[in-house]
Amino acid sequence: MQWYFVASLLTILTSSQGILTTLSQSNGAYKYDYATVPFLAEVFKLAVSSLLLWKECKKSTLPKMTTEWKTVALYPIPSVIYLIHNNVQFATLTFVDTSTYQIMGNLKIVTTGILFRLFLGKRLSNLQWMAIVLLAVGTTTSQVRGCGEASCDSIFSAPIQGYTLGVLSACLSALAGIYTEFLMKKNNDSLYWQNVQLYTFGTIFNLARLIFDDFRGGFENGPWWQRIFNGYTITTWLVVLNLGSTGLLVSWLMKHADNIVKVYSTSMAMLLTMIVSLFLFNFKPTLQLFLGIIICMMSLHMYFAPPNMLLDMPLTVKPDEERLIEVSVDRRTHS
Amino acid sequence: MQWYFVASLLTILTSSQGILTTLSQSNGAYKYDYATVPFLAEVFKLAVSSLLLWKECKKSTLPKMTTEWKTVALYPIPSVIYLIHNNVQFATLTFVDTSTYQIMGNLKIVTTGILFRLFLGKRLSNLQWMAIVLLAVGTTTSQVRGCGEASCDSIFSAPIQGYTLGVLSACLSALAGIYTEFLMKKNNDSLYWQNVQLYTFGTIFNLARLIFDDFRGGFENGPWWQRIFNGYTITTWLVVLNLGSTGLLVSWLMKHADNIVKVYSTSMAMLLTMIVSLFLFNFKPTLQLFLGIIICMMSLHMYFAPPNMLLDMPLTVKPDEERLIEVSVDRRTHS
Repeated sequence: MQWYFVASLLTILTSSQGILTTLSQSNGAYKYDYATVPFLAEVFKLAVSSLLLWKECKKSTLPKMTTEWKTVALYPIPSVIYLIHNNVQFATLTFVDTSTYQIMGNLKIVTTGILFRLFLGKRLSNLQWMAIVLLAVGTTTSQVRGCGEASCDSIFSAPIQGYTLGVLSACLSALAGIYTEFLMKKNNDSLYWQNVQLYTFGTIFNLARLIFDDFRGGFENGPWWQRIFNGYTITTWLVVLNLGSTGLLVSWLMKHADNIVKVYSTSMAMLLTMIVSLFLFNFKPTLQLFLGIIICMMSLHMYFAPPNMLLDMPLTVKPDEERLIEVSVDRRTHS
Repeated sequence: MQWYFVASLLTILTSSQGILTTLSQSNGAYKYDYATVPFLAEVFKLAVSSLLLWKECKKSTLPKMTTEWKTVALYPIPSVIYLIHNNVQFATLTFVDTSTYQIMGNLKIVTTGILFRLFLGKRLSNLQWMAIVLLAVGTTTSQVRGCGEASCDSIFSAPIQGYTLGVLSACLSALAGIYTEFLMKKNNDSLYWQNVQLYTFGTIFNLARLIFDDFRGGFENGPWWQRIFNGYTITTWLVVLNLGSTGLLVSWLMKHADNIVKVYSTSMAMLLTMIVSLFLFNFKPTLQLFLGIIICMMSLHMYFAPPNMLLDMPLTVKPDEERLIEVSVDRRTHS
C-alpha cells in the first residue's frame, strides 16, 4: 500500500469525524456521554489489531514480536503523554477562549517539525521548513474570524499563561506523535503486535479516565458501564468506528511514513471539513478560507514535489541545445 | 549599484508615499488639488533626467541616444496604457467598494508574472511561480478586514462586471510595467535619454488631464495654473519629491532588474506602511497582518534565494561520506 493512499484516506476519515460528531448531536447537544467514544474506539482498535495479529500468526512465517519487558514498558508512554496533554489543554482553556485556542493549535505543525528534527534526527531542506511554516500559516489563515463575528481581538490579549500553556500543549501533542513514530520504527516488529500493545494501554488509560470521572462526579450519572451505549444512535456508532479507523491509519503511517505526512493529512482534513460544512451546514465562504486553501496546497507541493520539478528551470533550456547538436551531427554526416 | 539596494530604497520611498500622503491631509481632507501632484512629479522626473543626460553629454564619450521617429513613437504608449487603466479603475469602483477593489488589486502581482512570461519570454521555475502566487496571497491576507469592521461580505457579492473590470485593471497595470521594461531593455540607449522621452510624454499626458478636468469642471476651481501650488505645504512638496523619486527608481529597475523585482518592492512597501501605521496612527495589529508578513517573507526567500540554499538536503549527507573516505585513506597509509 502506498503512503499517499493511506494519507488521503486519513484526510477523508478525519474530516468525516468532525462532520459525524456534529451530526451525532441532537439540537446542538450530546444525548450520549462523549467520554465513552474514545474508550470504545480504543477497544475497536485493539480488537481489529488482535484479529489481524492472530491471522498473521496462522501463516507459515511467524510475525516478529519482541516480548521482553523493557520494550513493552515503552508502550504506555504515549497514553501518559496524551493524559498530560489533556490536562494542559484543559488548563489552557481557563486562560484563553476556544477561538484563540484553536488558532494556537496550529503551532503543533511547527513543533512537530522541530521535534521531528531534534528527536528523530530527520533532516529537512530549507524549502521543507518553509513548507511546514506555510502549512501552519495556511491553516491559521483559514480560521481567521470573519467580520461581524463576536470578539476577535482576544488573540493578542490573552494572559501570558495562556500563551505559555498553548505552546506547551503544542509541544506535548507533537511529542506524543514523535514518540509513537520512534516506537513503531524502533524495531521491525509486526505492526499488529505493536498496535496490540499500544491499544491495550490505550484501553486501560481510557477506562481509568471513565472510572475517575465516575468518582469525581460522585456517580450521579451512574457508573461507566451504565453510561456506555446510553443514548447511542447509528451516527454515534459511526463516530466510534471512524475514530478507531483513523487511529489505525495513523499507526500505519507512523510505521511506514512519518509524522509530517500525518500532519499534512490532518491539516488537509481541517480544510476539507470547512469546505464540506459550506454545503452541509450552509456556512458562508470567507476570503480567508480561500486564501488558506491556496497556501496549504502550495505548502503540500513544496514539501512533497521532487526538487527537479520545483526547479525545472535548467531543463527548459536543453531542447534547443539538443537540436543544435542534432544539426551539427546532420552536417557532419552530409559532408 | 546593486539592484537590491535600489529595490530596498524603492520599498522605503513607496512606503513613505502612503504615509506622507496621509500626513499631507488636514482633518482627513486634501487642502490642495491632488491631481496636480502626479503632474509635478512628472516635471520633477523630467528635470532630473534632463540634468543627468546633460551631464552625461559633457563627458568625452557621448551617451547612446536613438532619435529615429520609429523608436521615439514607442514612448507615449505607457502613458496611454496608464490613461486607459485610470478609466477602467474608475469604472471598476462604480461596481465594487474600495475594500474589494484593494483586494482585487493584488491580482496585479500574478498578471505581471504571466505577462512577464508571455511578452518578455522570461522563464520562471515552478517554485518562482509559487512564490509569485504566495506574494499575492500574502498581501491579500494582510488586507483581510478585522472583526467588528463594517460590511466585509462584499468581496463575494459584487456584480460580475466588477470582477471583470478588476481583472482587466490588473492586466492593464501589469501591461504598463511589462511594456516599460521592454522599452528600457529594447536597446542600450542611455537610461537618462530613455527617461527624458518617457517623462516628456508623461508630463504632456498629465497636463492634458489637468486641462480636461478644468473643462469638465467648468473652471469652477479656476484653471490648472491657479490650482497648482494652491494649499501646498512642505509635506505636499515632500509627496511630490517622493513620488518623483520612486518613479526614477522604478525606471532604473526596469532597465537593470525587472518587473518582478519591482512587484516585490512595492508589495513589501505595502506591508511596511501597515507596520509603520501601527505606531504612527495607532492602528491595531491584526493576526492577518502578521500572517501576511510571514507569507510574503517566505515568498521573497523562495523567489530570490539560490536553489542550492533552498534544497540544502543533499549537502547535509556529505560530511559522513567524506569521513568514511578519510578513514579508508587513513587505513591505506597505515598499512
